[in-house]
Amino acid sequence: MRIAIAGYGNVGRGVEAAAGGFPDLVLSGIFTRRPREVAEQTNVPVWPYNDAAQHVGEVDTVIICGGSADDLPVMSPYFARYYNIADSFDSHENMSEHIARVGLAARGGGHVAVTAAGWDPGLMSLARLYFAAVLPGGETLTRWGPGVSRGHTEVLRRMHGVAEAVQFTVPDKCVDMPDLPESGNSAGGSDGDLRQAHRRECYIVPLPGTDTDALADAIRRHPYFEGYKTDIIFVTQDEFDAIGNTDRHGGLVVRRGDCGGLCSLTFKAALASNSRFTGSVLCAAARAADRLAGKGRTGCFTLADIPPVLLSGDETVMW
Amino acid sequence: MRIAIAGYGNVGRGVEAAAGGFPDLVLSGIFTRRPREVAEQTNVPVWPYNDAAQHVGEVDTVIICGGSADDLPVMSPYFARYYNIADSFDSHENMSEHIARVGLAARGGGHVAVTAAGWDPGLMSLARLYFAAVLPGGETLTRWGPGVSRGHTEVLRRMHGVAEAVQFTVPDKCVDMPDLPESGNSAGGSDGDLRQAHRRECYIVPLPGTDTDALADAIRRHPYFEGYKTDIIFVTQDEFDAIGNTDRHGGLVVRRGDCGGLCSLTFKAALASNSRFTGSVLCAAARAADRLAGKGRTGCFTLADIPPVLLSGDETVMW
Repeated sequence: MRIAIAGYGNVGRGVEAAAGGFPDLVLSGIFTRRPREVAEQTNVPVWPYNDAAQHVGEVDTVIICGGSADDLPVMSPYFARYYNIADSFDSHENMSEHIARVGLAARGGGHVAVTAAGWDPGLMSLARLYFAAVLPGGETLTRWGPGVSRGHTEVLRRMHGVAEAVQFTVPDKCVDMPDLPESGNSAGGSDGDLRQAHRRECYIVPLPGTDTDALADAIRRHPYFEGYKTDIIFVTQDEFDAIGNTDRHGGLVVRRGDCGGLCSLTFKAALASNSRFTGSVLCAAARAADRLAGKGRTGCFTLADIPPVLLSGDETVMW
Repeated sequence: MRIAIAGYGNVGRGVEAAAGGFPDLVLSGIFTRRPREVAEQTNVPVWPYNDAAQHVGEVDTVIICGGSADDLPVMSPYFARYYNIADSFDSHENMSEHIARVGLAARGGGHVAVTAAGWDPGLMSLARLYFAAVLPGGETLTRWGPGVSRGHTEVLRRMHGVAEAVQFTVPDKCVDMPDLPESGNSAGGSDGDLRQAHRRECYIVPLPGTDTDALADAIRRHPYFEGYKTDIIFVTQDEFDAIGNTDRHGGLVVRRGDCGGLCSLTFKAALASNSRFTGSVLCAAARAADRLAGKGRTGCFTLADIPPVLLSGDETVMW
């Protein structure tokens, strides 16, 4: 199964590192808008972004790596015309629009696209789906972090007046805690509750001359931040550089319900490297895309649409 | 979606109680070998076990409830000739044989069978499969209990010389503990390790005149017990009756691996009622069986073969 990467940022490098763990995947090339720069950082063949059409026949599935706000809505449909693709689109609000747009391109090209294949959306979406299916009438709680949100960080970085930025998502209770939050005294699973249960901590190096009050205002009104407790901390570049490892992250899905007494189902991810683990999920998704295409399927799939065995390298682990 | 239950023991009653939580399921009848006795315990129509052929057209999917050692290998193929079925076959060792046998009957009848749909096998099988798929190169740990194993209890009850019996599975660390077992100083995921990590505690009321030494010997040599630390405790009926709630159970799957540093994925089930929760998983599986049949599929499926969305009553919970 021959894969390529499109976009050589954090997640692209994560896919490159993770692919070594998948013996059935061969990384054939990297599509990028910065081919010269990227060629100095990798031994994998580097191809210009606009040459997607030139490598048909050399690659089965392209893993699309970029921000969900601006990159993936363009990149994923572009590559889906030529290849099977997998991406980790992570904007919960715009999911159905992305699925429709990518599905159109994939069906047009006769290819399979797997989208939203990360840990959330992704594994945590699956946990919410399975848990609600088998324990109806309960409540589901989601917690993220503490850790850096790639999507929110990308939004900050692209705002006018921002030189550098990073956004930590901080839950009211941490994923390292035993088994929480306690039922009844904490936020529930609805969107409004999620917003109350998490704080968004933004560290920003402003460009010289920036009106920081107006910038803070624009951030708080952005759909990614609206309704969240958002702390905006302006720092110097030196202070920013001292922040350290920003790739640790994690998440928790707990469903509790009455089923002959209190039952609970928990999924937890504790990740030393968000980008590397996302890359690993994307490799498994690429495997599934290739197998779905092999069955003659086309269009856009999320993990919910895919028989789990198609992601797997060894189904004997089940029993 | 009209379901029926076949077999009105613990799990059958669990399905009956759980079905109320599934607004799209209607419980139309109960097949049993003890129709007069069962009719006194339920308001649902009760049908003789041998009348399976008489109710075609009244029921879409039959949920098969019985022991995996002796009941399901006969019951599941019998009903799969006439209906879609779902069962929670739980003998890890005989899984492929069961799948083959049930698949043959289901394909012959043009029906869908979903097997091994409980929490383990079932949800924990899925966790092992997904976790290994996205975190290759790690190790997976499984722990069960403390709780009563239905399958092992059934095996004990059917042995010569046994009046009553119950088998508690006791892990080296309990599911209530925060996040264990510690890597390196505990048993791993292989079958041999699993046997070292769990103790099987058997409480048995022997029939009068039984050679208890020979009985204990036969238990230890049974495939369900061989290789496990097995404590066999002979008790009086009064002592047995004092044991109390034997339906609480739970399990844990943890996968740990290097992915840019140590990453871990955890699934945990803490269940007030094993039989009721198993019944709930079976209801979701029946829903999937009906939907697969609606797509023209036939044969035997495990949860690994089924797109998660087909189990779900509401896929909007994902995002």
